[in-house]
Amino acid sequence: MERIIKRGFASDNNSGAHPAVLQAMIDANEGHEIGYGDDYFTARAIEVVKKHFGEEVEVFLVFNGTGANVLSLNNLTDSFNSIICAETSHINEDECGAPEKFTGCKLLTTETENGKLTVDKIKKHIYGIGFEHHSQPKVISITQVTEMGTVYTVDEIREIAEYAHSKKMFLHMDGARLANAAVSLELGFQEFTADAGVDVLSFGLSKNGAVNAEAVIFFNKKLAKNFKYFRKQAMQLGSKMRFMAVQFETLLSGNIWKKNASHANNMAKLLVEKIKDIPQIKITQEVDANGVFAIVPAEIIPKLQEEFFFYMWDEHNSEVRWMTSFDTTEEDIEQFVALVKKLLKT
Amino acid sequence: MERIIKRGFASDNNSGAHPAVLQAMIDANEGHEIGYGDDYFTARAIEVVKKHFGEEVEVFLVFNGTGANVLSLNNLTDSFNSIICAETSHINEDECGAPEKFTGCKLLTTETENGKLTVDKIKKHIYGIGFEHHSQPKVISITQVTEMGTVYTVDEIREIAEYAHSKKMFLHMDGARLANAAVSLELGFQEFTADAGVDVLSFGLSKNGAVNAEAVIFFNKKLAKNFKYFRKQAMQLGSKMRFMAVQFETLLSGNIWKKNASHANNMAKLLVEKIKDIPQIKITQEVDANGVFAIVPAEIIPKLQEEFFFYMWDEHNSEVRWMTSFDTTEEDIEQFVALVKKLLKT
Amino acid sequence: MERIIKRGFASDNNSGAHPAVLQAMIDANEGHEIGYGDDYFTARAIEVVKKHFGEEVEVFLVFNGTGANVLSLNNLTDSFNSIICAETSHINEDECGAPEKFTGCKLLTTETENGKLTVDKIKKHIYGIGFEHHSQPKVISITQVTEMGTVYTVDEIREIAEYAHSKKMFLHMDGARLANAAVSLELGFQEFTADAGVDVLSFGLSKNGAVNAEAVIFFNKKLAKNFKYFRKQAMQLGSKMRFMAVQFETLLSGNIWKKNASHANNMAKLLVEKIKDIPQIKITQEVDANGVFAIVPAEIIPKLQEEFFFYMWDEHNSEVRWMTSFDTTEEDIEQFVALVKKLLKT
Amino acid sequence: MERIIKRGFASDNNSGAHPAVLQAMIDANEGHEIGYGDDYFTARAIEVVKKHFGEEVEVFLVFNGTGANVLSLNNLTDSFNSIICAETSHINEDECGAPEKFTGCKLLTTETENGKLTVDKIKKHIYGIGFEHHSQPKVISITQVTEMGTVYTVDEIREIAEYAHSKKMFLHMDGARLANAAVSLELGFQEFTADAGVDVLSFGLSKNGAVNAEAVIFFNKKLAKNFKYFRKQAMQLGSKMRFMAVQFETLLSGNIWKKNASHANNMAKLLVEKIKDIPQIKITQEVDANGVFAIVPAEIIPKLQEEFFFYMWDEHNSEVRWMTSFDTTEEDIEQFVALVKKLLKT
Repeated sequence: MERIIKRGFASDNNSGAHPAVLQAMIDANEGHEIGYGDDYFTARAIEVVKKHFGEEVEVFLVFNGTGANVLSLNNLTDSFNSIICAETSHINEDECGAPEKFTGCKLLTTETENGKLTVDKIKKHIYGIGFEHHSQPKVISITQVTEMGTVYTVDEIREIAEYAHSKKMFLHMDGARLANAAVSLELGFQEFTADAGVDVLSFGLSKNGAVNAEAVIFFNKKLAKNFKYFRKQAMQLGSKMRFMAVQFETLLSGNIWKKNASHANNMAKLLVEKIKDIPQIKITQEVDANGVFAIVPAEIIPKLQEEFFFYMWDEHNSEVRWMTSFDTTEEDIEQFVALVKKLLKT
Repeated sequence: MERIIKRGFASDNNSGAHPAVLQAMIDANEGHEIGYGDDYFTARAIEVVKKHFGEEVEVFLVFNGTGANVLSLNNLTDSFNSIICAETSHINEDECGAPEKFTGCKLLTTETENGKLTVDKIKKHIYGIGFEHHSQPKVISITQVTEMGTVYTVDEIREIAEYAHSKKMFLHMDGARLANAAVSLELGFQEFTADAGVDVLSFGLSKNGAVNAEAVIFFNKKLAKNFKYFRKQAMQLGSKMRFMAVQFETLLSGNIWKKNASHANNMAKLLVEKIKDIPQIKITQEVDANGVFAIVPAEIIPKLQEEFFFYMWDEHNSEVRWMTSFDTTEEDIEQFVALVKKLLKT
Repeated sequence: MERIIKRGFASDNNSGAHPAVLQAMIDANEGHEIGYGDDYFTARAIEVVKKHFGEEVEVFLVFNGTGANVLSLNNLTDSFNSIICAETSHINEDECGAPEKFTGCKLLTTETENGKLTVDKIKKHIYGIGFEHHSQPKVISITQVTEMGTVYTVDEIREIAEYAHSKKMFLHMDGARLANAAVSLELGFQEFTADAGVDVLSFGLSKNGAVNAEAVIFFNKKLAKNFKYFRKQAMQLGSKMRFMAVQFETLLSGNIWKKNASHANNMAKLLVEKIKDIPQIKITQEVDANGVFAIVPAEIIPKLQEEFFFYMWDEHNSEVRWMTSFDTTEEDIEQFVALVKKLLKT
Repeated sequence: MERIIKRGFASDNNSGAHPAVLQAMIDANEGHEIGYGDDYFTARAIEVVKKHFGEEVEVFLVFNGTGANVLSLNNLTDSFNSIICAETSHINEDECGAPEKFTGCKLLTTETENGKLTVDKIKKHIYGIGFEHHSQPKVISITQVTEMGTVYTVDEIREIAEYAHSKKMFLHMDGARLANAAVSLELGFQEFTADAGVDVLSFGLSKNGAVNAEAVIFFNKKLAKNFKYFRKQAMQLGSKMRFMAVQFETLLSGNIWKKNASHANNMAKLLVEKIKDIPQIKITQEVDANGVFAIVPAEIIPKLQEEFFFYMWDEHNSEVRWMTSFDTTEEDIEQFVALVKKLLKT
């Protein structure tokens, strides 16, 4: 069994890690550190997160995005609550029911055109308040960048946050690609999270060049109550936490997070630029960040996937998803587009 | 904030990683790999695990030992079952109720002198079979090396396995320190797991020099049914799995696992050798592997902990636990024992 | 505090019990009976249920319809499964998340015009099979009579059953008003349940004149495996079960169930007959059984409710629900319609 | 199939209901009442409960004792908590893991000689506070009358309550036989529950002559927060609640509860009186209420059970349990003792 190195557009987590991340892990390897987060590197990671998100946050490292989402939601809810989200949201589509299983809550979904919730769409789920037969709505969960590659503006977030709070509900943000959103919005993290009314954030850097670096960030410390116990009970407490912690510091203390996200976004733009005029291909979503959705002639898809793996998004209409990453090269794009054109004989 | 490098005996997970492990992560960093385990390195990791445990096993990588334990138990049980374990077992004492929360099962505990279950102790929990008011016993869970630093012999395991199977129950083994047990028993992994009647194993290498490397191994493939869905729903499916997978290969393909475990065990023996004749100290458990339990005069404990951190095991009788690791040095032991003697003025 | 006896159209469970039911409870009161269902009367209840549903069924008495639904679904699923149902279904709307909490499953909902699922509507949820990130569809749940007062034909049920089975899924029927459906279809219970492909039925008689009489009926005995343990763990096992058991016998051994259901259905027809020509009122659903849905001028609703309580169904369009019952009288209808007309000044 | 009326000593729930209870159900049958507890009879039931337990309580009717226990515990805990109870307690032994499944909590058990917890026994479970690896103790649960037929004195309860509160824990009482305890202690209900420091009570009258009448009573209203949603989600909300509610009123508004309990207790005393001098029989527990535990020659047990059914308590030492009930007659006792003597040839 010999490894054949391939490249593709399947997901930004198909990339490896930024070299600086791995070097930092080596640098942190000397000596002993108390396990489970009570160590020097985790303390530093929390400090660097606070520099981006504000001093008054509570930060907890977890293993993966599903863990971050489920534990965020769990701290906001009782089991009789419901959680409102887009039908396409990761918590609804891609976590195999983890939120329902751990929290006991019901997910209420809404169809969207572009992966974004709006107050109007949310409203249809707000009724039966105080009626014990009805799951009580408690959280609105949005994804930034959305699963459709679009980015909420600050105003869009703030409107949802204000509506949530007016109903005594909370706003959760799944920020698995938060860096790509920041770059897209040309804003600091705090400006479109804490400052826009988000209560709890799943903050992921795994898709930004980490090996694995995920955290839950509470913007209201009261909401973090007992989180440490739930994290442990949810099997999300790592032992040698220093190795995850240094990844946060590496990516966030300087500019690496921004360079990585900018590059990924730019590569998506480049892909669109090169492909948008091919008549047989239709770009279906705004390309706000590093995801490109397109309807492509079905017959070329398997051949494309052989060379550059990517996922079918919707088989019914031959829609695919192409994700770019911090390590996508211009050459990747060019070769890919050339292959598309060759297969389409354009 | 400056890091002060310390060393101690708190836990074998306070160590960093073996350098070869980190180097392997760097070597695996090139190119893209499908996420979530469908990659070259995970396939290789599974192959190397099979070399040690037999071709007919099913192997799944997970994030941590708690995840491995909970998911092992989950695949063996329905929610109305009970799980028999030692009172001191990790699943009972140190997982904040994760097994109960995810599986819905009841844990039935037994006091032990040395962390080991015996058929005699297990039997008191076997009654009410078929009586729907009573949680139905379905799994016996043992830990190898036990939480008290002792190691089950093959015969001890086999006796429990045979009893379990005679009652249509399963035997789970928590192998967070399986390498230390193998070295202690001078046996290959398979001989005291699959061959001794273990049905499912939580196999951990994090305490053997990995950054984080944990797996669930099913010795009966039928028992692995649907595991992949439960792993995902339990938030235990990693995205860039190659980075965990190479750790298995690094430690298991050659002798590193054995060297690391031998060294840790030897350091524990050395510690015992040097400390056992101090009259104020009483070693309380057989030192079969890399854990030393001792009753120590209470007044010296805080001063010892300042220099070499370790955990109090039982405050009532001033019993402490000292764990050695793959990176414990003879110098560590000597300095520690010297400090003990100095504080005791012996 | 003096009781003021009122009558209304809120729900068929606002009625009391048929006198024969209470008399049967008195008749069963003598002597001792083993608790928890191992008694003479429960055995007889199961026999009488089998006369209606076939000898090869498994029958379990439970406390209420929510319990029957949750336990039915639980026996058909693993926690990583999903359950497809109408958005208006009781399991989705009126059980405060009980199915999610106990089973861990995801509910996938579909908008309907009349409360009925169709294969076409179901199909949009069938994808991602074998993909571990996606909750795996396993059960289709329909309600007969639907929550919108409509009744599935045998062909409609059979089509859904065949589709379910072709996908290795199961068909669950929530039969809280099964007697009303039987009368409406002019069929025996078996013909539109077991014979039409239903796998598991929640069978309720509480709305048919019982004090409380609910059961889970498995048409495939294998699916009933371990049900007794789950019933107990779900807090749904009654101690003095004889008192519920005799209610089944009373209603089902002769014609009472049919008389009660026919009467309720007829009263709904009478209500429609008398009200349908009032121009300000619009009947919004087919009245197949004992529920009438209507859009009514908002201003008269509170005054109507004062005299004859009923529930608002949809505040947005001033739609109400009127349920008739085994004890609804022609006089009730006449007085109610007279009040409507008076308030509308027609 | 003909019913053969038998009598026995299996459990006080093998009795039927007091005739006044069934008559009250008939009397409540007229007219319509809002379902799910928003009715005249439930309001009255709550009033009568308050007369016994104090005006400041919150009362919720539920289906059965398991439901009352689980929902009581659920409102006192988060899933990472542990609950301390006697090994023999109903929540540990006889609810098939319902507390673990619904609350996610761990049960910590203690061996007792007589079914009673003591502060000393509880203390061994109080450690690891604030340590996230360890399930955090939050509730002490005691049973009154205990499962061993003994009754806690007020002082015994108060001592446990004070200890619980000193540790910021709560005291739950499982009062499935509370009336028998009240009669035994010659106290009103409030004196040995609310006044002794109990925080939440599972209050059962099913064993006191009801068909089924169980409630959760919160002595601190804050602890009742959101209970109504959890009750619904736990499948414990009845629809025609009037029929359960009138049972509370019937038994509690006058003296029936006390007569029933006194009689049951007296019959147990009579049984002991008549049997205690038989040399082959050894009474093993204090007979404080209506349960008699005895070691009996194994060879006569099956023959005794044929005539008067009862349960084996501990097969290992041939210990049986005989429960008396409100409907046990002196004749029952005499015939039973005569049979014992005959079989023992004394």
